[in-house]
Amino acid sequence: MNLTAIIEKSLDKFLPSEKADPEVLHEAMRYSVFPGGKRIRPVVLTEAALACGGKIKDAMAAACAVEFVHTYSLIHDDLPSMDDDDYRRGKPSCHKKFSEGAAILAGDALLTLAFGVIAREYGPGIASAMTEELAQAIGSCGMVGGQALDIAGDKRTGKVNRLKTAKLFEASAVLGALSAQAGKKKTEAMREYGENLGMAFQAVDDKLDGEASFSIADTKIFVKNSKRALTIFGKKANGLKKIVDQLLK
Amino acid sequence: MNLTAIIEKSLDKFLPSEKADPEVLHEAMRYSVFPGGKRIRPVVLTEAALACGGKIKDAMAAACAVEFVHTYSLIHDDLPSMDDDDYRRGKPSCHKKFSEGAAILAGDALLTLAFGVIAREYGPGIASAMTEELAQAIGSCGMVGGQALDIAGDKRTGKVNRLKTAKLFEASAVLGALSAQAGKKKTEAMREYGENLGMAFQAVDDKLDGEASFSIADTKIFVKNSKRALTIFGKKANGLKKIVDQLLK
Repeated sequence: MNLTAIIEKSLDKFLPSEKADPEVLHEAMRYSVFPGGKRIRPVVLTEAALACGGKIKDAMAAACAVEFVHTYSLIHDDLPSMDDDDYRRGKPSCHKKFSEGAAILAGDALLTLAFGVIAREYGPGIASAMTEELAQAIGSCGMVGGQALDIAGDKRTGKVNRLKTAKLFEASAVLGALSAQAGKKKTEAMREYGENLGMAFQAVDDKLDGEASFSIADTKIFVKNSKRALTIFGKKANGLKKIVDQLLK
Repeated sequence: MNLTAIIEKSLDKFLPSEKADPEVLHEAMRYSVFPGGKRIRPVVLTEAALACGGKIKDAMAAACAVEFVHTYSLIHDDLPSMDDDDYRRGKPSCHKKFSEGAAILAGDALLTLAFGVIAREYGPGIASAMTEELAQAIGSCGMVGGQALDIAGDKRTGKVNRLKTAKLFEASAVLGALSAQAGKKKTEAMREYGENLGMAFQAVDDKLDGEASFSIADTKIFVKNSKRALTIFGKKANGLKKIVDQLLK
């Protein structure tokens, strides 16, 4: 099985069944998680684990957790009071398919599930370090803060992108390192990689949307920095390098 | 300082400053946390810790976490797509004071903060046990699930109350025990206490609202069961008994 197939299977495993009570909530959660996009955050997390000498199976719970967080953020961002998007990945967004109330709760439940999966699947030391990292990355001074700045029309594009997008990429790479029980040096190199990858990702994404938040020169610097952070991992980081290269295609 | 004063001070300590970026988000979080109600969940948590031989200072981070969870649930429940309440505790609800988008994000950030505070403030073993317990209690098969059933008009009042209200009371009592490093027997007694207290609390609350979800006889059974669970703690549980008695006044 290739990596994305393993990720899909794991996401299915960690999500409550649609037949579990309350069915409509579990249906809404699964509707938003499947089918997904490229699952780039779980892939980054798993490749980071591999680069640190870890195993795919030990990375999978955290990989699913960051995808649950990403999905929750999309559900809430799509709401009428935020970006007001009726479609997501070619189908009605969660609140259009279900209801606004159900969508808000599906997002809340996915966020909660992310923390629950980590606490249940890892030993206390790793779980605690992951939870602290993730909570910082996605809280009021991280991803949620970035969305708050965004809907308030904040013009500091660099800051908004750093919080709204790069923080979760950074946490993904760091959680991968933690799942592999990497030491501080490798973990911090992954932080550097993830943050710069996230900034490059958002710059490319904005360019595709015709917004051009960063110049091509800026984007190149992010790409360069993300690759430079991988030096200490040698060939083991080829998977992570490939992710950066594919961004620019 | 009395217990509620200590709780107020701790809530203030664990919340980011209003002056921290993004200001509007931190303002919305604080607006909803202060001034609060009776802080009954943090009080239950702290009294449970004391009954298990623990200390107030070791209970405080978890006590604040459950209050952050409670506040997030109120913010989201008040939204137009849910219960559509314009007022909360005598002042405009979060989405009326700020905006729907800001309110959704303030709730998301408070939920995330709850997990972050626990991971940061406790040793890994306790933090991990608390996180697992809390995530179960407030996720899709817990509090959020109860709210989903509620907005869907589910008629199983017992089930709705158990999930929507009793689960967080249960988790509060259990987290108090965990903060005191209580053994399994005491922890499970606290679970029994908390669940029954939560059911009694909701029954009384519904009666005050003129909804009368449970008969007086049912409520008395919850009260009786919650007190019975405290037997093993002897006089140390006087604080917890008092909470039950005050409910019925």
